[in-house]
Amino acid sequence: MFPLNQWYVGGFAHELTDKPLARTLLGRPVVIFRSGDDGVAVLEDRCCHRSVPLSCGILDGGGIRCGYHGLLYDGSGACIEIPGQVKIPGKARVAAYPAVIRDEVIWVWFGDASGTQPHCEPPAIPAHSNPRYQHKTGVVHYRAPYQLIHDNLLDLSHVGYVHGKTIGGNAKVHMEAPTTVSSDENSVRVVRWMKASTPPATYTAAWPFKGLVDRWQEIDFHLNHLQIFTGAVDVGAESLENPERGGFHMRGFHGVTPETETSSHYFWTMSASAHPEQPDNIDLVYQQTAQTFEEDRVIIEEQYRNMRQFAGAPQVDIHVDAGANRARRIIAVRTAA
Amino acid sequence: MFPLNQWYVGGFAHELTDKPLARTLLGRPVVIFRSGDDGVAVLEDRCCHRSVPLSCGILDGGGIRCGYHGLLYDGSGACIEIPGQVKIPGKARVAAYPAVIRDEVIWVWFGDASGTQPHCEPPAIPAHSNPRYQHKTGVVHYRAPYQLIHDNLLDLSHVGYVHGKTIGGNAKVHMEAPTTVSSDENSVRVVRWMKASTPPATYTAAWPFKGLVDRWQEIDFHLNHLQIFTGAVDVGAESLENPERGGFHMRGFHGVTPETETSSHYFWTMSASAHPEQPDNIDLVYQQTAQTFEEDRVIIEEQYRNMRQFAGAPQVDIHVDAGANRARRIIAVRTAA
Amino acid sequence: MFPLNQWYVGGFAHELTDKPLARTLLGRPVVIFRSGDDGVAVLEDRCCHRSVPLSCGILDGGGIRCGYHGLLYDGSGACIEIPGQVKIPGKARVAAYPAVIRDEVIWVWFGDASGTQPHCEPPAIPAHSNPRYQHKTGVVHYRAPYQLIHDNLLDLSHVGYVHGKTIGGNAKVHMEAPTTVSSDENSVRVVRWMKASTPPATYTAAWPFKGLVDRWQEIDFHLNHLQIFTGAVDVGAESLENPERGGFHMRGFHGVTPETETSSHYFWTMSASAHPEQPDNIDLVYQQTAQTFEEDRVIIEEQYRNMRQFAGAPQVDIHVDAGANRARRIIAVRTAA
Repeated sequence: MFPLNQWYVGGFAHELTDKPLARTLLGRPVVIFRSGDDGVAVLEDRCCHRSVPLSCGILDGGGIRCGYHGLLYDGSGACIEIPGQVKIPGKARVAAYPAVIRDEVIWVWFGDASGTQPHCEPPAIPAHSNPRYQHKTGVVHYRAPYQLIHDNLLDLSHVGYVHGKTIGGNAKVHMEAPTTVSSDENSVRVVRWMKASTPPATYTAAWPFKGLVDRWQEIDFHLNHLQIFTGAVDVGAESLENPERGGFHMRGFHGVTPETETSSHYFWTMSASAHPEQPDNIDLVYQQTAQTFEEDRVIIEEQYRNMRQFAGAPQVDIHVDAGANRARRIIAVRTAA
Repeated sequence: MFPLNQWYVGGFAHELTDKPLARTLLGRPVVIFRSGDDGVAVLEDRCCHRSVPLSCGILDGGGIRCGYHGLLYDGSGACIEIPGQVKIPGKARVAAYPAVIRDEVIWVWFGDASGTQPHCEPPAIPAHSNPRYQHKTGVVHYRAPYQLIHDNLLDLSHVGYVHGKTIGGNAKVHMEAPTTVSSDENSVRVVRWMKASTPPATYTAAWPFKGLVDRWQEIDFHLNHLQIFTGAVDVGAESLENPERGGFHMRGFHGVTPETETSSHYFWTMSASAHPEQPDNIDLVYQQTAQTFEEDRVIIEEQYRNMRQFAGAPQVDIHVDAGANRARRIIAVRTAA
Repeated sequence: MFPLNQWYVGGFAHELTDKPLARTLLGRPVVIFRSGDDGVAVLEDRCCHRSVPLSCGILDGGGIRCGYHGLLYDGSGACIEIPGQVKIPGKARVAAYPAVIRDEVIWVWFGDASGTQPHCEPPAIPAHSNPRYQHKTGVVHYRAPYQLIHDNLLDLSHVGYVHGKTIGGNAKVHMEAPTTVSSDENSVRVVRWMKASTPPATYTAAWPFKGLVDRWQEIDFHLNHLQIFTGAVDVGAESLENPERGGFHMRGFHGVTPETETSSHYFWTMSASAHPEQPDNIDLVYQQTAQTFEEDRVIIEEQYRNMRQFAGAPQVDIHVDAGANRARRIIAVRTAA
């Protein structure tokens, strides 16, 4: 059970090639392919004839042709050719999901009934076209439910323990940082400031800080993705309340989409600011970002494996859970609706 | 549930060595070994003492000896020696299945009750001893129910899509070829002619055709195997109605045996005619035959994986399904009996 | 279901390093680590906060710190620090199991209720400190229930069939050896003598026997381990009734602990006597011991795999089963209690 009538991330535009892309989203196997000029089609990944995955077939003139007996489907899911047969039965079609590409992200609409159309635009990801930043992307498969990834991203106190070699820094400083949590019925915002703190390894590699820094973490959770803005300026150099502040910026996009009830896709981009005097160091930021997300995957999959081992064991809340718990309540309300 | 009181293919004679052969047939693990001069024994693969597979033991004087405590069984399944013990309890025995070797094929009888004896001979495979042909064999394991393999073999319209590089040829010609289907209560025959068609790659490699060919596919489905006769002559050179016609011949034997409800054994031989001027090219025919069956395995296993993903999804019949659907009805009637 | 209120082997002291040791015992995932001077702690392997395995964390001052958010636990299972939070809730704790190290073996107490304390000492393994012997250890994981390993160790008639190349020797001699079986409510003793028999390969490699030997096997089964004393003297040289007899000795310790209902840990040591004239040959004894236990693992896992294939199939008892059947009855009575 997942919240419906909303957009989910299905992948990145650059994943679409001359081959079909097979992926399971919200428990439904789909095939994703370019259809039309800038369009993208997302169909149920099943030929209506003998159930072979359409993703085993080939792209053909904006549609997709089954690799077993050649049935051809257009982007709406209708079968438009059965080789060797004149009449095409009306029921020869598969489900199609509304989909668009915006800011390099493939968004797919999952409604609560067949044929439901989107009632809103998918979110913009402005960092992807902000000339101040370069960005790179990654796709990580998780053998864990997607809300465990939300929990992780909404609670950046773990970075001192899990990511000590990269973006972490002193664990105690993280755990004791003043944190504010705010929310409405669709989103949660968590802001943490670590003033006059020692910059972590990734920051000092990327940016020539003079010494201590004023560091921030601004986490914005939405039902279908998170945007996390982190960074630092030399201590006292600028107000952390200034939205136009300079310094080293890392703007993360985190598309967390259920694959099944027990597995997930994690589509991420990292948009970071290169310092003009050391532009090559930005590669290190991406490498360490990828390493960081791999560290998260390992511990979250271990966590989920253990949750099944200890099914029903109680959990004790601590101070860092406020943001994650609000996000869970929002999803619970939306799923029940 | 499978049709009982019939022979199934358990393997090939050349698979029997000085080691026991373990195989699961119709959901029953069995051990197969030579017993007596030309005989073959097929026993339940379980020592009656502590359930160790007999196939972990050794062959000993026409019987099989358990590798744990040395109990010796003869080809009828009776325990005939318990080392260190004089008396052999009457219940010290395991089930035995009637089995014979004919034309290099091991046939095993599965009755509807213990001890049921065969009421007919197993089928002959005359191509195996026809001096006109050479033949080679293969054993393929399928993670798919056996009737999906029947479907595939009874519908050779798929060869244009799945086997384009070898025996396929033009997909549209295949899909539009005139096809006749006939059947009785135990068999189905599908005949397709593709006159004046372009020979596929395997054919031109094996035989010096002058140009276009008259090509045929004759599929004979039986409850425990299929025999498929395909080939071609130079266009107009001979009547396709002449059973003694020349040209390039490929005679396939296809023993399709359930391993379990969800997996299968596919025992095949290909008997082909080498052209006297280019006898070495026959090796290519076998290589491409093996490649073809591997291509089928990939798509059928994907099909079955997807059928489980979309359990209960309806399927739309098309024109090529006539033969396969009759075979399914025959098996359904026999299974219910 | 396993007998409770008793010690089980959890591992060997030398397995404890500066990293936590994760292991599942009796279906319960635990983390094992040194705590205090000679102490060992065994805790439920689950942080009470978000269920991450504590074994993914680090050892810290005699306790263990979770690798996700830094919660610190002492050896009693109490959480004694939550970074960034002053108050520690009373329920912030995990289960702890009483554990001691004796004669290099880690013993863990599993009671029938939380907090149950041991009412006896764990067993001594005197061979581990007997200057007459050297010993080596091994840990083998079994995909089979632990009582199948008991069956194997209590019935050394199988060594002729399974271990023909090492400790086996003539299979018929083993199967026909006079055997006495005695038992009480907690233990079984099986003694077998093979007088004037040919020594097996391992024995002749380790010890300069003159020819035939008087060979013995003394198996002592206890609820949580077995000790098996085997060896040989030159034929007629000494009475096998003399507990101080010389010759070649192999004293095996066999800690068999359920991992789950269907898998097991097998912790073994072999204490053997090196002959003064050929002390280097003792290495061969250990190599062949390890090979022997690997041969057992293969056949027992095949046995269990087959028992599931043939679920419910009857088993026929033979003469060698007397000891194993008594051990099974003892465990059945204790499990029911």
